[in-house]
Amino acid sequence: MRNLSLLTDYYELLMMQGIFLEGKSTYDRKAIFDMFYRQNPNNNGFSIFAGVEQLVDYIENLHFEKEDIDYLRKQNIFKEEFLNYLKDFKFSGSIYSFLEGSVIFPREPLVKVVAPLIQTQLIESALLNIINHESLIATKAYRVCKAANGDKVMEFGLRRAQGPDAGIFGARAAIIGGCVGTSNVLTGKMFDVDIMGTMAHSWIMAFSNEEEAFKKFVDYYPNNAILLVDTYDTLKSGIPNAIKTFQYMEEKNIPLTKYGIRLDSGDLAYLSIEARKMLDEAGFTNAIICASNDLDEDLIQSLKMQNAKITLWGVGTKLITSSNQASFGGVYKLVAIEDEKGELVPKIKLSDSTEKITNPGDKEVLRIYDNNEKIFADLIKLKEEQISENDDLELFDPIETWKRTTFKKGTYKIKKVMHPLFENGKKVYENKKVIEIQEYTKKELSTLWEGTLRLTFPHEPHVDLSQKLWDMKNNYIKQKIKDWR
Amino acid sequence: MRNLSLLTDYYELLMMQGIFLEGKSTYDRKAIFDMFYRQNPNNNGFSIFAGVEQLVDYIENLHFEKEDIDYLRKQNIFKEEFLNYLKDFKFSGSIYSFLEGSVIFPREPLVKVVAPLIQTQLIESALLNIINHESLIATKAYRVCKAANGDKVMEFGLRRAQGPDAGIFGARAAIIGGCVGTSNVLTGKMFDVDIMGTMAHSWIMAFSNEEEAFKKFVDYYPNNAILLVDTYDTLKSGIPNAIKTFQYMEEKNIPLTKYGIRLDSGDLAYLSIEARKMLDEAGFTNAIICASNDLDEDLIQSLKMQNAKITLWGVGTKLITSSNQASFGGVYKLVAIEDEKGELVPKIKLSDSTEKITNPGDKEVLRIYDNNEKIFADLIKLKEEQISENDDLELFDPIETWKRTTFKKGTYKIKKVMHPLFENGKKVYENKKVIEIQEYTKKELSTLWEGTLRLTFPHEPHVDLSQKLWDMKNNYIKQKIKDWR
Repeated sequence: MRNLSLLTDYYELLMMQGIFLEGKSTYDRKAIFDMFYRQNPNNNGFSIFAGVEQLVDYIENLHFEKEDIDYLRKQNIFKEEFLNYLKDFKFSGSIYSFLEGSVIFPREPLVKVVAPLIQTQLIESALLNIINHESLIATKAYRVCKAANGDKVMEFGLRRAQGPDAGIFGARAAIIGGCVGTSNVLTGKMFDVDIMGTMAHSWIMAFSNEEEAFKKFVDYYPNNAILLVDTYDTLKSGIPNAIKTFQYMEEKNIPLTKYGIRLDSGDLAYLSIEARKMLDEAGFTNAIICASNDLDEDLIQSLKMQNAKITLWGVGTKLITSSNQASFGGVYKLVAIEDEKGELVPKIKLSDSTEKITNPGDKEVLRIYDNNEKIFADLIKLKEEQISENDDLELFDPIETWKRTTFKKGTYKIKKVMHPLFENGKKVYENKKVIEIQEYTKKELSTLWEGTLRLTFPHEPHVDLSQKLWDMKNNYIKQKIKDWR
Repeated sequence: MRNLSLLTDYYELLMMQGIFLEGKSTYDRKAIFDMFYRQNPNNNGFSIFAGVEQLVDYIENLHFEKEDIDYLRKQNIFKEEFLNYLKDFKFSGSIYSFLEGSVIFPREPLVKVVAPLIQTQLIESALLNIINHESLIATKAYRVCKAANGDKVMEFGLRRAQGPDAGIFGARAAIIGGCVGTSNVLTGKMFDVDIMGTMAHSWIMAFSNEEEAFKKFVDYYPNNAILLVDTYDTLKSGIPNAIKTFQYMEEKNIPLTKYGIRLDSGDLAYLSIEARKMLDEAGFTNAIICASNDLDEDLIQSLKMQNAKITLWGVGTKLITSSNQASFGGVYKLVAIEDEKGELVPKIKLSDSTEKITNPGDKEVLRIYDNNEKIFADLIKLKEEQISENDDLELFDPIETWKRTTFKKGTYKIKKVMHPLFENGKKVYENKKVIEIQEYTKKELSTLWEGTLRLTFPHEPHVDLSQKLWDMKNNYIKQKIKDWR
């Protein structure tokens, strides 16, 4: 396991030392931070929460080695007493989060960290880095798979990912979001997911001609006979040679199980339609037509509308980088802190923009399902509040508060959606197989209305505040504004 | 050092085994691959080459451990003889590349790999991943720094980077591209670059009021007194409290060395102008005004045009992800391979798009400087060709071949730009400090005309082929087209 303890922003360490020098009664005060985000990437109607396992690994491994301490000492800014504190650093707090693979919505706490103030600072940057990255890619993968409309999508982006981790964990997130496999062998090994691919142009070019290259390949890999047909000329050379190769397989009694062609350049709509005709005419009606080359959800949708005859998609660059929105804007904000008397005081960060004002206090998220077992809203409430399915439930928009809905009891269900990862420093999270997380995501998607699942102008489910939380928040806003007037 | 040997696409391993099973006379044949790219990211006039040190580390560490072999065995596709070969795998070839920090142009070989065919396949994915990522971010950093027009730019993107490596190596690349430092402590430690930052909103919120939080901070960090002023209200609370804090420093005879404010939200043009007035009126005319919040080169240019009074820039998300173009399209193509007789045969990949046809053969790149020591063109030539400054030099556009320029001898200079990283498996590359690479990049930038350096519609220097290479390439094209007609 890599030591990522210094994977933090410098100001976190400066703030930690400052708090440390204020004394134990300051730095040991319990603080609560929420991680949340404000907008779904790519205008999606929701996002998919991913990265939990990597977050847990990071927290579990947090410790400063001698070389870390030595490096910090060299900055001539850290005092020995603080460096000594770091030597024995161990995360002793609690962390709660949505289950990995959950569908999530803007403005609700996804991760809640409850820990001594000094510890909450250190972990901000890595926590955000991990969750932001994997949630971004899982959500993008959902979009690509949705556009493929039931066709299988393979993740092919390693070479264009933003560094090794982006390739490794990006592929993991892509599986969670719905891809059937990845070309990335290391991801396959680390997370036990299917690895996929057949040949590159260099295979063709290493032989004296295309036909020979194809026949050699099916000799070695008869069950994986997807032939890349665009090295020289797709229609004049590639597909005819592929057909000759499938005929050669028949002659040699090699069963045609998984076989077909891959298009990697040119007009994929036209070429796939022509390829389908040529393959069908030769009797290879169940030959797969796979396409790759700068695909994303928009291009796949466009190809579908043009009746492209593609049934398997290899998606690289634009999935692994989430190219049209390359970041997931998760933030991590202080929402409560103990005062000197040990009482938990909610905290609020104001902003000129209403959406950017944080929700103060120690909170929980309840998911409200309607009669159809679809998500109607997520409800953020104070931890101590009791909300029961045995009562009627009134929900309201936290900004346009006159917009109200009442659910009669028996017409809705409530689910608690945050679960502990750590309790008082002890890991209570159990790793799941990525393929199980993918299954969980599929179940989660089945709880969304089609209007939320669609790729363009989706309907976003509501994220509401309980009346008590709303009242508290608005009182704090008024008071803060008074304070500095 | 992490074991990244399986950081490869599955098809590379399938192709390797196929070649392996063809026998040593096939898999051991010398092959040459070029890594190059086709278009500068973000419409820049050039790119900055980065990632060389990470590429060298990867190649040097290539080896398959028992658990890697066991994983591959489980796929039920790899034969024991091939797995045995992998057990002893070591890269035994030669690699040449531009120096890290060089300015580079589309279509020229940046990295040349000369090795037994079987080895050249394995390294494709990781080589591209590493070089694509760091060159992307170094180039983006150039653009942001260029827009800042001499102001210092700090890299602040860790929390929005696409995974830990994207944060770590992205920050490294950002320094190469011109940033003065990074918030990422791990990058600071690994690469000995300056780490920067002061406080987050949570620091302010952890104290009973903003003024107290500021004063505490300057007590601890009198030489790093950049105060974040937007937690409550920038003009009504933040800046007045910052001024009180600077006055407090004067009263306490704390020297005002590095001090000022950071704006992190709102209208940065308006707020910085107002802040400047307020600070100046209070006598703090040399207080720094730092800005952050979703900055990129476009926003910085716009703020400059609005006479924003910002002198220090913290740039996060959009730099570390290169948000408006999140990938650098480097590719890796076979350009030559030995035949059975041991003769090196140039190889070409055709495409309907002229720009996508590869340049065959074992090549070198010469950089041609004009009388002003500015780059006029890069010239790709065959390795065996001799081109000397003692002759006149005629250059021509490889597509519009009637466009020709002749340099009389004495009016131009030639520099060889590719240098060995490995020779016959032996590492000959010596690591450089990142700060030295940054210096080298600055020198490289001084060899570009202002028309190339500008951010919008820049002039791209020429990348030409020698007459001999051009003739060979066009003969191969004709022959290939004949072959499959």
